[in-house]
This record gives sequence, C-alpha cells and structure tokens, in this order.
Amino acid sequence: MSTSSLHPHGVFSAALTPLDAELAPDHARFVEHCRYLLDEGCDGIALLGTTGEANSFSLAERTALLEAVVAAGISPQRLLPGTGVAALTETVALTRHALSLGVETVVMLPPFYYKNVSDDGIYASYSEVVQRIGDKRLKVVLYHYPQMSAQPISHALIERLRKAYPATFTGIKDSSGDFANMTAMVERFPGFAVLGGADPLMLPLLRKGGAGCITATSNVVARSLAYVFKHFGDSDDDPALKAAQARIVKARELVSRFPQMASLKALAADRTKHAGWQRLRPPLESLPPDQLKELLANAAAFAAAF
Amino acid sequence: MSTSSLHPHGVFSAALTPLDAELAPDHARFVEHCRYLLDEGCDGIALLGTTGEANSFSLAERTALLEAVVAAGISPQRLLPGTGVAALTETVALTRHALSLGVETVVMLPPFYYKNVSDDGIYASYSEVVQRIGDKRLKVVLYHYPQMSAQPISHALIERLRKAYPATFTGIKDSSGDFANMTAMVERFPGFAVLGGADPLMLPLLRKGGAGCITATSNVVARSLAYVFKHFGDSDDDPALKAAQARIVKARELVSRFPQMASLKALAADRTKHAGWQRLRPPLESLPPDQLKELLANAAAFAAAF
Repeated sequence: MSTSSLHPHGVFSAALTPLDAELAPDHARFVEHCRYLLDEGCDGIALLGTTGEANSFSLAERTALLEAVVAAGISPQRLLPGTGVAALTETVALTRHALSLGVETVVMLPPFYYKNVSDDGIYASYSEVVQRIGDKRLKVVLYHYPQMSAQPISHALIERLRKAYPATFTGIKDSSGDFANMTAMVERFPGFAVLGGADPLMLPLLRKGGAGCITATSNVVARSLAYVFKHFGDSDDDPALKAAQARIVKARELVSRFPQMASLKALAADRTKHAGWQRLRPPLESLPPDQLKELLANAAAFAAAF
Repeated sequence: MSTSSLHPHGVFSAALTPLDAELAPDHARFVEHCRYLLDEGCDGIALLGTTGEANSFSLAERTALLEAVVAAGISPQRLLPGTGVAALTETVALTRHALSLGVETVVMLPPFYYKNVSDDGIYASYSEVVQRIGDKRLKVVLYHYPQMSAQPISHALIERLRKAYPATFTGIKDSSGDFANMTAMVERFPGFAVLGGADPLMLPLLRKGGAGCITATSNVVARSLAYVFKHFGDSDDDPALKAAQARIVKARELVSRFPQMASLKALAADRTKHAGWQRLRPPLESLPPDQLKELLANAAAFAAAF
C-alpha cells in the first residue's frame, strides 16, 4: 500500500484562526494565512480543528469561515474542516454544509461532552451522522485525541465503522502522541490513512506506511514538513532531510515550552507584524508578556540556528 | 443566612428530555413531564442540563424546546435552563434567548472542550458572556461537574466572579458529589446559593446552609425531595422525614446500578406506559434488555418497600 493511494495523504496544517477585535474569526486574514500555508508547501488545510479554536466558535461562525475560504478561491479539495461537535444534529449540519461547498473530506471528533461513553454509543453516533447525510461523496477522517476529547477511538470501533462504511471512513488523525498506536493502525487497517498529530513523528510514521500529518507546528514549519513528506524515502544520512527533520523537532520544542496555541499565534503575529494575531477566544488566553518575550527570544535563536 | 433568601433555592429537577422517533426532543411529552415534576412538588425545572442531554442537541433544538415550555404556560420564573456550551458566542446566544422569554436564571457550564484551562481563562469566558449580554436581570448558577466538564469551578474563581458581578453569580450547582466542597462554599460565600447535585446530600447540605438541589433522581422521587426540603429542620427521628430521606437514598441506588440517564428514562417509560421514553440520543444509549429487566424488577421491589 503506497502512501499516495491513501486518502487523505500529505501535510495538512491544523490552521490557527486569527481573530478580530471582537474575538470573531477574521476572514480576510485567515484566507491570507491559508494561502501562506499552501505556498509553504502544505497539501491542504485542516481548518476549524482543535488548533483553530473551532469548538469556541458557533455553528454560524464555523460555516461562515469555511464559506469565506471557498469564496476566496481556495480549492475545496484542499480543505479538511473539522465538523465533529458534541451535538449530533450540529455535526450533521456542519458536515452537510461542507459537502454543499464541494468539501468532501472532513475531520470528525467523536461527541465530546459525555464521558465514559461506550464504543457502541460512539459507533451509533458516527453511523447516525453518515446515514442522515446520505452522501456518497463524504469521506471522514476520524479524530483520536483522548487528552482533549476524553473519548478515544478504539481499533475495534475503526474496524466496525470501516466494515459498515468502507468508502466513508478513510482515515484517522491520531493526536495522542502514541506512536505505537499509529503503527498498530497502519498494520491492522490496510488502505486506511493514518495521519500523525505530532510533527516529529511524521517521518517515522511515513516509513511505516502512514499517510502524513495534520499538525499545529505546520503553522511555522510547513516547508520542512513538506520536504520530509516528499523525501521520507531518502537515507537518514541525507543532509537536507536531516536538517528538515531537525528543524521540525526544534520548532515543536519551541512552541511547546508555553501553551502551544498561544505560542503559535504569537509567532504568527511576529511574522506578519500584526499584533491582533495574538488574540485567542476565552477560555484560551494569549501569552503573558514575560512568556511572549522568552518565546520570541527563543524563536530568534531558532531562526539563526536553523 | 436563611435558605429562603438564597437564589435560587428549592428542589429543581434536572429534567430528562423525551425524544421522538427521529431522536429529536418531543415537545409535547416534555411539557407533560415538566407539569408532572411541578405537580410532584419540584420548585422548578432545571431543563437542558447534563441529564436532559442538552449537549447532544443543536442550538436550534435547545431554543425550540425552551420556547415550547414557556408557550405551554409554565412560568419562566420556574425554569433554570442550561445555557453554557463550548462556544462562547453560543453561550451568549442561548442565555440571551432565555432572557428574551422571561427566564432570568440559567445554569452555566464552563466551556468544556479545551482541557487544563486556567482559572483566568474560565474567568474571562464567564466575564465576557456577562458583559456581552449586558442585562441586569441575568442570574447565573455556576455548574461544578469536573467528572463531566473536566473543568472544575474553583473557590478562587467564584470569589472573583462574585466580586466583579455580585448580582449575577448567585449560586452554584455542585455535581462533584464532594460534600466537603459544598459546605466549604456555603461557609466561604454567605448569600451564595449552593445546590447539591446528589439527591441524598440535599438534607445534610440544607442543614449546613445550602440552598437545595438540582438532581436527576428528582425525575422519580420529586415528592420525597420536596418533603425533605420543607422539613429539613425537623428532628432526624421524625418518621416522615426519615422515610422520605430513605426513599431518596434508595431511589438513587436504584438508578445508579446501570447508566443513570438510561435508567431514569426507562422508569419514565414504565410510569407513563410510553416506550418511546426509553430513547436516548447517541452517544448515549438505552439500557440493553437484560439491564432493563433487572431495573424494572428492582423498581417494583422499591415501590413495594417504600
């Protein structure tokens, strides 16, 4: 099974969402950010995910942002919006809306309010969503992020969903950071696209048959990720591959020293010279001044060294 | 500080939401259920909470249900809808909508998607909601349920919110089951209404100066809860008080043997002879047949004994 036969495959940016002074998504600046990410070499944009603060936005804010991106001329084929929310009917509405815009692949969190829900319940939820939508074009990337959703996606659940809807459940984003879980899925489910959520793991995951990544650090090192994706088959001794991977590892360290999303937004503000990029919607917060200062000093050292 | 000076005070039912065959809220049956709960002695209905599966419903489904209850003639003063969701703008929309119907007191979960959020972030979220609404009528019952929201409401946060908005943050529902936490809040915050989320704890909490309860078991033993609320000052030796409290304790055991919400719905189905009452929306599930059989046998024994 080659990587290119998996869907989706490549480097997808878990894109940040810039906010305006009212803390609402800033459409124009977001479109600009998507273009930047694609120019840097991303294969697509996984917008409206955890990193994009999607679950802090209303349904209306989510649909409006997606519409703005498509209206700006970014191909729907390159968009992987998050559409899984706590309420089944809103997951259906968001997914149907994406399809109406020509977006066929979505990343779908399991319903995340109730805890200790059984696999049967999660299966029923995904199954009900697919049946209510009833659109053969739909392709769903499952989203395994137990640290945030508190709802793991078990292998037994994947097996069941793929058996019932083989053309629909085409992949998974694994943000658990557990490499053994990622490779176990690659081995157990041929043709299933396993995308890593941790940037440094994309290289080893691709070598095991993974499909790529959907990551947050791509907001700053998309170019290196794109290089690694293209050259993962090269020797580890290849200096350019080595450098790209080292840059990814260091960038991830850089943005993980303080809260990651706030750090990434601070770096976007620094790059674009637009201070508004630093805004996050509550309950998330911008970096306090001392952390911001340290981050920018570290970033300068990073830029000089890599 | 007497109980009656607290707002809100009394027995509030965390009402179940009956679903129709499409798994949508059944308005007519819900209104009927609210009337039943009030007839049984509840002071009010805490609709659209965790027990009411609110976070499995869309914003439109939530507002429509609340409208149906008010339209049916149930006093808005007796309604405590849940309006706190993951997205700040939807929390604002739901709360504003409640106020537009004459409902002035809401139960507000903290935003529950992001984990390990700081008190500053939760404060910013509640503060932003209150400021955006800008309606002096608004009274908010905070909702402490770390097992479900994964976001505790700390005492420092309560202090800060009460200091900034003393007329707004009037109480808290504590569903943690931690009696020491409830009594500590009563002692630390005079005039603040502490409502227990666990039925058996209402009696001891009232004696410590608590305000009452918002509970799920009230869906089956509202009459006993109402009795205890009225007579909590009586001697423990009072046979009627003793019997009511024993009935509450046993009922809670009865519905906690298997998944609680499914058990409560099964008992509502049994009482009303409407099998549709058993439906839950995914990811939650109805009881499997063997558990249903055992629950109903236990319920019959309970009814005979109490």
